[in-house]
Amino acid sequence: MNDILDKPDEFCGVVGIYGTTDAAVNAYLCLHALQHRGQESAGIAASDGINVTKKLGMGLVSDIFNEQNIKDLKGHIAIGHNRYSTTGASAALNMQPIVIKHRDGILGIGHNGNLCNSVSLKRALEDRGSIFQTTTDSEVILHLIAKSLEKTIVDKIKDAARQIKGAFSLVFLTRKKLIVLRDPHGFRPLALGKLGDAFIVASETSAFDLIGATYLRDVECGEMIVFDEKGMKSYHPFEKTDPAHCIFEFVYFSRPDSQIFGEYVDKTRRKLGKNLALESDIDADIVISVPDSSNTTALGYSARSSAKYEIGLIRNHYVGRTFIKPTQAIRTSSVRLKFNTVGGVLKDRRVVIVDDSIVRGTTIKQLVQAVRLAGAKEVHVRISSPPIKNPCFYGMNFPTHEELIANNRTVQEICDYLGADSLKYLSLKGMIDAMPQEGGQKYCTACFSGKYPVEVDDLQSDS
Amino acid sequence: MNDILDKPDEFCGVVGIYGTTDAAVNAYLCLHALQHRGQESAGIAASDGINVTKKLGMGLVSDIFNEQNIKDLKGHIAIGHNRYSTTGASAALNMQPIVIKHRDGILGIGHNGNLCNSVSLKRALEDRGSIFQTTTDSEVILHLIAKSLEKTIVDKIKDAARQIKGAFSLVFLTRKKLIVLRDPHGFRPLALGKLGDAFIVASETSAFDLIGATYLRDVECGEMIVFDEKGMKSYHPFEKTDPAHCIFEFVYFSRPDSQIFGEYVDKTRRKLGKNLALESDIDADIVISVPDSSNTTALGYSARSSAKYEIGLIRNHYVGRTFIKPTQAIRTSSVRLKFNTVGGVLKDRRVVIVDDSIVRGTTIKQLVQAVRLAGAKEVHVRISSPPIKNPCFYGMNFPTHEELIANNRTVQEICDYLGADSLKYLSLKGMIDAMPQEGGQKYCTACFSGKYPVEVDDLQSDS
Amino acid sequence: MNDILDKPDEFCGVVGIYGTTDAAVNAYLCLHALQHRGQESAGIAASDGINVTKKLGMGLVSDIFNEQNIKDLKGHIAIGHNRYSTTGASAALNMQPIVIKHRDGILGIGHNGNLCNSVSLKRALEDRGSIFQTTTDSEVILHLIAKSLEKTIVDKIKDAARQIKGAFSLVFLTRKKLIVLRDPHGFRPLALGKLGDAFIVASETSAFDLIGATYLRDVECGEMIVFDEKGMKSYHPFEKTDPAHCIFEFVYFSRPDSQIFGEYVDKTRRKLGKNLALESDIDADIVISVPDSSNTTALGYSARSSAKYEIGLIRNHYVGRTFIKPTQAIRTSSVRLKFNTVGGVLKDRRVVIVDDSIVRGTTIKQLVQAVRLAGAKEVHVRISSPPIKNPCFYGMNFPTHEELIANNRTVQEICDYLGADSLKYLSLKGMIDAMPQEGGQKYCTACFSGKYPVEVDDLQSDS
Amino acid sequence: MNDILDKPDEFCGVVGIYGTTDAAVNAYLCLHALQHRGQESAGIAASDGINVTKKLGMGLVSDIFNEQNIKDLKGHIAIGHNRYSTTGASAALNMQPIVIKHRDGILGIGHNGNLCNSVSLKRALEDRGSIFQTTTDSEVILHLIAKSLEKTIVDKIKDAARQIKGAFSLVFLTRKKLIVLRDPHGFRPLALGKLGDAFIVASETSAFDLIGATYLRDVECGEMIVFDEKGMKSYHPFEKTDPAHCIFEFVYFSRPDSQIFGEYVDKTRRKLGKNLALESDIDADIVISVPDSSNTTALGYSARSSAKYEIGLIRNHYVGRTFIKPTQAIRTSSVRLKFNTVGGVLKDRRVVIVDDSIVRGTTIKQLVQAVRLAGAKEVHVRISSPPIKNPCFYGMNFPTHEELIANNRTVQEICDYLGADSLKYLSLKGMIDAMPQEGGQKYCTACFSGKYPVEVDDLQSDS
Repeated sequence: MNDILDKPDEFCGVVGIYGTTDAAVNAYLCLHALQHRGQESAGIAASDGINVTKKLGMGLVSDIFNEQNIKDLKGHIAIGHNRYSTTGASAALNMQPIVIKHRDGILGIGHNGNLCNSVSLKRALEDRGSIFQTTTDSEVILHLIAKSLEKTIVDKIKDAARQIKGAFSLVFLTRKKLIVLRDPHGFRPLALGKLGDAFIVASETSAFDLIGATYLRDVECGEMIVFDEKGMKSYHPFEKTDPAHCIFEFVYFSRPDSQIFGEYVDKTRRKLGKNLALESDIDADIVISVPDSSNTTALGYSARSSAKYEIGLIRNHYVGRTFIKPTQAIRTSSVRLKFNTVGGVLKDRRVVIVDDSIVRGTTIKQLVQAVRLAGAKEVHVRISSPPIKNPCFYGMNFPTHEELIANNRTVQEICDYLGADSLKYLSLKGMIDAMPQEGGQKYCTACFSGKYPVEVDDLQSDS
Repeated sequence: MNDILDKPDEFCGVVGIYGTTDAAVNAYLCLHALQHRGQESAGIAASDGINVTKKLGMGLVSDIFNEQNIKDLKGHIAIGHNRYSTTGASAALNMQPIVIKHRDGILGIGHNGNLCNSVSLKRALEDRGSIFQTTTDSEVILHLIAKSLEKTIVDKIKDAARQIKGAFSLVFLTRKKLIVLRDPHGFRPLALGKLGDAFIVASETSAFDLIGATYLRDVECGEMIVFDEKGMKSYHPFEKTDPAHCIFEFVYFSRPDSQIFGEYVDKTRRKLGKNLALESDIDADIVISVPDSSNTTALGYSARSSAKYEIGLIRNHYVGRTFIKPTQAIRTSSVRLKFNTVGGVLKDRRVVIVDDSIVRGTTIKQLVQAVRLAGAKEVHVRISSPPIKNPCFYGMNFPTHEELIANNRTVQEICDYLGADSLKYLSLKGMIDAMPQEGGQKYCTACFSGKYPVEVDDLQSDS
Repeated sequence: MNDILDKPDEFCGVVGIYGTTDAAVNAYLCLHALQHRGQESAGIAASDGINVTKKLGMGLVSDIFNEQNIKDLKGHIAIGHNRYSTTGASAALNMQPIVIKHRDGILGIGHNGNLCNSVSLKRALEDRGSIFQTTTDSEVILHLIAKSLEKTIVDKIKDAARQIKGAFSLVFLTRKKLIVLRDPHGFRPLALGKLGDAFIVASETSAFDLIGATYLRDVECGEMIVFDEKGMKSYHPFEKTDPAHCIFEFVYFSRPDSQIFGEYVDKTRRKLGKNLALESDIDADIVISVPDSSNTTALGYSARSSAKYEIGLIRNHYVGRTFIKPTQAIRTSSVRLKFNTVGGVLKDRRVVIVDDSIVRGTTIKQLVQAVRLAGAKEVHVRISSPPIKNPCFYGMNFPTHEELIANNRTVQEICDYLGADSLKYLSLKGMIDAMPQEGGQKYCTACFSGKYPVEVDDLQSDS
Repeated sequence: MNDILDKPDEFCGVVGIYGTTDAAVNAYLCLHALQHRGQESAGIAASDGINVTKKLGMGLVSDIFNEQNIKDLKGHIAIGHNRYSTTGASAALNMQPIVIKHRDGILGIGHNGNLCNSVSLKRALEDRGSIFQTTTDSEVILHLIAKSLEKTIVDKIKDAARQIKGAFSLVFLTRKKLIVLRDPHGFRPLALGKLGDAFIVASETSAFDLIGATYLRDVECGEMIVFDEKGMKSYHPFEKTDPAHCIFEFVYFSRPDSQIFGEYVDKTRRKLGKNLALESDIDADIVISVPDSSNTTALGYSARSSAKYEIGLIRNHYVGRTFIKPTQAIRTSSVRLKFNTVGGVLKDRRVVIVDDSIVRGTTIKQLVQAVRLAGAKEVHVRISSPPIKNPCFYGMNFPTHEELIANNRTVQEICDYLGADSLKYLSLKGMIDAMPQEGGQKYCTACFSGKYPVEVDDLQSDS
């Protein structure tokens, strides 16, 4: 959980390249573009058809890679991975891509998502003598592949894929191939692009923009694509089922300049803001966003409201996630370190604060106080998604039920807790209405609605 | 020079605290708030009345300080400093605060600004046997103090201050005192605040907001203030002269949520945007900013224009100043890594891009291309300050004359170079009109106008 | 290979403790005493009956451990490991103890020795889907245990042990037990001691001396001992066979103050020196050693010779194994950096240099030159073991056949290469005569004689 | 103080080279040979006639230098320095060579020794406005030079040299010159050698051996030599006085393979051992040394005794000066970690332990116990120098009077404290008799006799 921002974490971002000179350099650039999806560790594995090399490290992409170690990652195939924070000691262990030697060669994996049956699969594998190196569910997939009796790596991966359940946007690297795979529900995004004659897949299309690649289409729900010297070949190893795209990708996770699930995030967020204003506008002077994730949403809100869009909160981008808690004698907080109010804008105004979601409520509570302290006459909070009441088993990192502020509290109780003059959430209907619906797009809304598209066999494991 | 952003660098930010428990913790928080003024190194020196301790390091405040080393900086007095990039090897040497032992005790110094006669002073001091540890002009001040024949540290500092010329907002720490000093023209900002019974000075008031301090007033031009157990005592060691506040602090450097030279930066920038629209509006669909420094200016522009404010460029805040130049085979640039376009917003629109200044023109040229590539029909560039034609000798880091794009080029030539449909700069008059004028406020506009308020004796030295 | 010293490397040292408070502290001290057996990496794993913790690192024991990380290794059970240099990238990967989670719990392993069938075992395991983390043969043992169908960890280890061939002195740690195991031939030493009520096993008894433990006896050839809350229980899972103790442990590897294979190394080395003098004494003034490994041998030699024992070579103990090769313009060598001659002792003397072995001959050649340069009239080389003609598959790291100077060269040819006045090796008979023979002690002399006690199925793997 | 060994520390070793290609590589090798004189930090400064570069670091020479940073130290002139441990925070600050820019150029200094009037000189310099960077007395010399009114650097150094008192073997580097200087009493050694056409000076001649240089003579007491493109020129800036060579250099500090003060250390130590046996032999079986510093002395002793020379103590050279104190539950000590007994040699024997000196007595006390524990019937301690009763002000680091075991204790009381059967020190006369006397050599014996050749004005400062 990103405590300072009071937002859920997304576990990861992935990228795969086939066919460029220095594929690792492209992967490196794409990981920069996907840095928001994971900031704890990053890694790249590359192959020149003969040798597979890798470089992984803790921290940001820019901390890990340098001219020399990027240069050492030779070849026309590369996969890359950004990973979000997991607990303590296991962090370094769980960096991805994981690269193993198995009977038939070398295999690297990068995984965005979360398996729902990894605990029972792991138990069964250990009963047969498998030794696990990491605590990730991604490693389960590798063991299933290593144990598969199929002949080719493509068939082995299919075999393994049919045994796993849950959310998985996967990139695999072998000496000769890039193989990508998306779960049948398509929980997490995975886009396919072209860069000259080369192919690229990435969690979000903003990675394509950076290197001048063109977006072709999404990897389909349940599709597996193999890229090698013969070109690109598509398979559908799963039975067809309904899509269940994570709606939170539109609400918060993805970059506004990305296309995911076939639509610009920016456009969807603007629509969320408009719907929010239509449902719950109030007479106010200005509307401000909690930068940067709700900027577009607040602009959308102001388009359907008489309140003027203003910049009332300044975000300090130099402040990372670690910061020394000052002693009690010092009156401040990590929220104040991250956000400051703009005095001239807020004084004597009736203010609407637009945010995309509330998890624990700790941050927005402090922002309401700060805006009041800066002289606002009224403070109204508007949230562009419904109350979050349920955990996610498909790749978001939420606190427990107990910590979710909307669990067992009415909206009025939450409003009182925040100290706001009013609080409104967007309705589930209003949220879904803002989403692209063409081609039968359907969404997972489990964290809001409690309707889980895939059953969870196990206690949640870490990925 | 900040190459990726094509903006001049400000050399430093300073803070001084007298009278709180754990003054260093307050200094640490304030350095976070002033991080935008210098990102190469940071440091804090503290005194508990008997022992002086310090901690300096290369990198961001959050990289340098941790719970333990902050705790080791004991006492009720502290000074802190953020420093901008200087060249190579001398970087670590030149970290501040510089703390020395001299005849009468310990003295620490933090300096924002640039001396204009440091070279000749240094030569004279070396002729008398002084040995310099750093290549900063700030150390010259220390040697002048150490050599002063005056009796008290206060008189020694006055003595030294009268010998130096140029821009200096200074914080000094001794075992028992915090002493602050601002040059007679007040080139760089320096605000005075109160936190309970304690005093604080800082380059910008956003540092006060963070720790809950109240802004009292600016340290006056030419004022020296001594804080010790007897309270606060003000001196005016210089002859009175006209103020010459750096106008670029309002245009670009300072945070929008700060008050400098007695006014909210945000308000001034909004006015710059309005004046810019009044002078040079054009028929367009949308106006976008180059985030984040020109956000408010673009909002101001849209308020006087028929073009709607939109978010058309997304800035990747994870990308630092160092980044691996990809090989020539890869088509991208550090500018694209830093900024991406929002496809849905720009396509088929007539776009006005508002930026605060152009130095070399490299970044805005690439942004114009990127916006066109995203489908914009027209791209018009509007700059909220006049063409920059001259170097600064008072603390900004510009490229040489030859590299300044406005040197020896007409606006139309620059427009052609950028590939924009039109380019307009705000007039000098329009810029000054946006500035606060109460109380005889006057501004240094040397980089635009070539009128230098203080003569420069020496080749520019590094501070 | 230790190039500067021109000696084979021993792969490792191991230690295991059961029953003391802070077992890890004892393990840490013992690893110091066993540092000569491996200097590339070291590690300790500890258990308090519930939690297993570990700390591993590259470098010397004193580089890796500090007050804090030793304190974190809580519990009454610990195993430790020093490891010798292996090639490049795999080094960090191959640090020991390796600690894994398997179906039934946690298992740590430390291994001294080398398996002779690890390649074929590994291939078979990979065919059944096992994924290897390291390139050590030690990991093969873990996979065999994890895959064993036996019920208890004791039976699983027995099951695995019966499948492996070669040299292995092993220490295992589980949550509740310390288990140790020595191969049927007892290639590598493993001593059993007592410290109050606690038990300790270590590669050499000098580890016992350091912590005040008492030597009880050796772990027998083919013996497995389990230490847990019920005390100590001994098993013999293998068929009985003849011992084949590595004779090189006496000649060079072990510390002179250790007892191995039941005898003081010092005593054996003195006997080697005496036998060497009896076989090949020559009329000379002084006998000097190549410090420190042949000090005792040279003393023994002088006891049976008219030549007086002197200190003619000084070893610089600060010089580690890495050292910058000076440019060709500089006339020196790593050997000269490591050893200097004592001018006053050597001048105008007829000198016997006693060394324990010659591998490539590079070092002794330079020492002969150096001794001549220091003014010696004659230089005679005496080696306390026979010519080394064959590789070792049981845990010593030799160069290839081609690089062994005694391969395809007569003693006279070697003498000419060294530039010595005479060269004599101890005979195989003379060497074995110096060894303890009680209780049917027998020795592996394969590197001298070519007689290998255990067949080697595979290409040599790395351990 | 080297606590584990219970020996005084020597503060430093110095080297200077003029005239070789890659002088820094030669300096680097020499620093390896002088590592025993200082292990806390090391540094090299080099000049190619135009640019001066330097590299300093904490730790051993092999930790600090690598292929790249040595390569960066270009030029035909170099000075190098090894430094011993000083207290805490000031350590990194006080690394040498110190390199400064002064009025007339660049000056580097490396200093072995200790000034006796540095405190009063420093006070006077600070009164005139000098700012000190370090807490070393060496920096005083630099300030005296920077302040000198003489015209040339040679005259400035002479001017400064005449103001300082005490022990100083100095190497200076300028852009064009190497200048070396030895105090009038010649407390510390400084040898002059030749390497082809190039010149070299170093604390000990073992540095010459390593790079193939030839020993010419010592830099004379009170001599200053300037090396530049015109060759070598000698000056004698001081009034002539009696030599006062540190006798402890022969007793303990210098390497046995070095010539200092014109004589091989080895030879002198052998004589010390012989004299010791002549004065205080006892009926015993064996004589053992405390390795490695008293090896030769013990050999000398055995030559005049019926006791046989044996190796009864093994020193673990991997154990550095830092080591984790085990908890009280563990019965061991840093002495036991450093030295182990050889059981087979000591059991049932009457043993003479020869050591060169006793400072606190802590180490020898534990060695006596250890030797008894190994079964010795009798343990007699013989020391090859008189009781140490006084501090040194010329470059050795002793504990305070109170901690010196021989201060206010009779030899019998010390013997009782050690638990030895007998204890004898060599007499002052016996020690001096072992020293070379040709050419009027005279020695400082202040630590034994209390007769100080140079008056000490100040409290001892740190160098």
